[in-house]
Amino acid sequence: MSIGTLILLRHGESEWNASNQFTGWQDVRLTEKGEAEGRRAGELLKDAGVLPDVLYTSLLRRAISTANLALDAADRHWIPVIRDWRLNERHYGALQGLNKAETKEKFGDEQFMLWRRSYDTPPPPIEAGSEYSQDADPRYADLETVPLTECLKDVVDRFVPYYEETIVPELRAGRTVMVAAHGNSLRALVKYLDGISDADIAALNIPTGIPLRYDLTESGDKLVPTTPGGVYLDPEAAAAGAAAVANQGGK
Amino acid sequence: MSIGTLILLRHGESEWNASNQFTGWQDVRLTEKGEAEGRRAGELLKDAGVLPDVLYTSLLRRAISTANLALDAADRHWIPVIRDWRLNERHYGALQGLNKAETKEKFGDEQFMLWRRSYDTPPPPIEAGSEYSQDADPRYADLETVPLTECLKDVVDRFVPYYEETIVPELRAGRTVMVAAHGNSLRALVKYLDGISDADIAALNIPTGIPLRYDLTESGDKLVPTTPGGVYLDPEAAAAGAAAVANQGGK
Repeated sequence: MSIGTLILLRHGESEWNASNQFTGWQDVRLTEKGEAEGRRAGELLKDAGVLPDVLYTSLLRRAISTANLALDAADRHWIPVIRDWRLNERHYGALQGLNKAETKEKFGDEQFMLWRRSYDTPPPPIEAGSEYSQDADPRYADLETVPLTECLKDVVDRFVPYYEETIVPELRAGRTVMVAAHGNSLRALVKYLDGISDADIAALNIPTGIPLRYDLTESGDKLVPTTPGGVYLDPEAAAAGAAAVANQGGK
Repeated sequence: MSIGTLILLRHGESEWNASNQFTGWQDVRLTEKGEAEGRRAGELLKDAGVLPDVLYTSLLRRAISTANLALDAADRHWIPVIRDWRLNERHYGALQGLNKAETKEKFGDEQFMLWRRSYDTPPPPIEAGSEYSQDADPRYADLETVPLTECLKDVVDRFVPYYEETIVPELRAGRTVMVAAHGNSLRALVKYLDGISDADIAALNIPTGIPLRYDLTESGDKLVPTTPGGVYLDPEAAAAGAAAVANQGGK
């Protein structure tokens, strides 16, 4: 049996993307633009004939809504769904809720980029009881400890083993798997898939709402991309979108 | 551990409810009114503090969309979802696609009510290759045989064993289970839960978009309702809605 196809989809614009705030595990809604991105992602899937057999989402509304809209537009609303916190965005610690431009101004460019793009330096932990903490959120009630902050390495450490144990068997069974998730959880996965170094991953940005297709092949005991970096279903829009992500923190 | 709560939710108004056509396994969209019903169902759940831990849906868009809208409004969009064809609406056979008022006029009141409400007389089977058949629908590719028509008894025979095997264990584990489905699949389940006779089930109508809550208790090896018939979260709207369903076939 041939190996299936992996489709990565970063959620469309959220209210806090629009207001330029660090979001992390805060559960904000899509904007109208973000909803339109979700529907368009579904049309891109349909036009490309890339039809997901199974959907994985984070536990956050912006990824769930984007996937719902995309699958509805692609006539694949009826496929099985699995949700897991390991697909969640990176927890942004004490930065959650802060405006990105104000944070950059207050702490300076260097500290700002370190928090955003350092592989292994997390932001300061969020305070217990903060309005932006997830201490009391029922969806994480079964977790032994709810993160107080995360660096990208932490996301790799939680997401990649889950990908190997849960998603890879679906791919090996020949299925087309869609993963609807977040800027940093998808960066963590792409780092692993493409074997990107801890330093080089800083420069990689994933645009919102454009399906990124990975066809895979066996290499040793790992599935590796046949085309490194995968293929965006709308490459022009993806390039523009990635540039916009890179420029966040501007006013 | 106390036994969980079962929430039944019939999808909101669909395009073919609005145009008075037999729908069955045809996969039609919600109308704007139907979408509003979905959101209101979620507000009713939230206001009542009845928060689903797990969602079961059919494979049909009108039930899936209603559940998505309801859970989003209730802040429970992140719960696990299981979809299964056994929750589908009754397959309406050769009637799928036909206008209800025209069908009633053509075949007469008696035949019309027999097809709609007889427990064990299915409508004529749909023809293979009909534009309204599900022969080639990929979501049923794993079914040994796709139904060509069903009576309510057929729905009981497919849905009740699934309920006992899959949903009852969740209830016994103390969970609140939401079932987002259809007029006749929910009638099949209610018939079983409340022990309604083959004759009496004809008079039972379930309104769209209003959560119906069943609290359950052990009786022998079966879970039975503590309040026969369950409790609608908006009883006044439910009574008006059930009357409207009973009057379908009028012009």
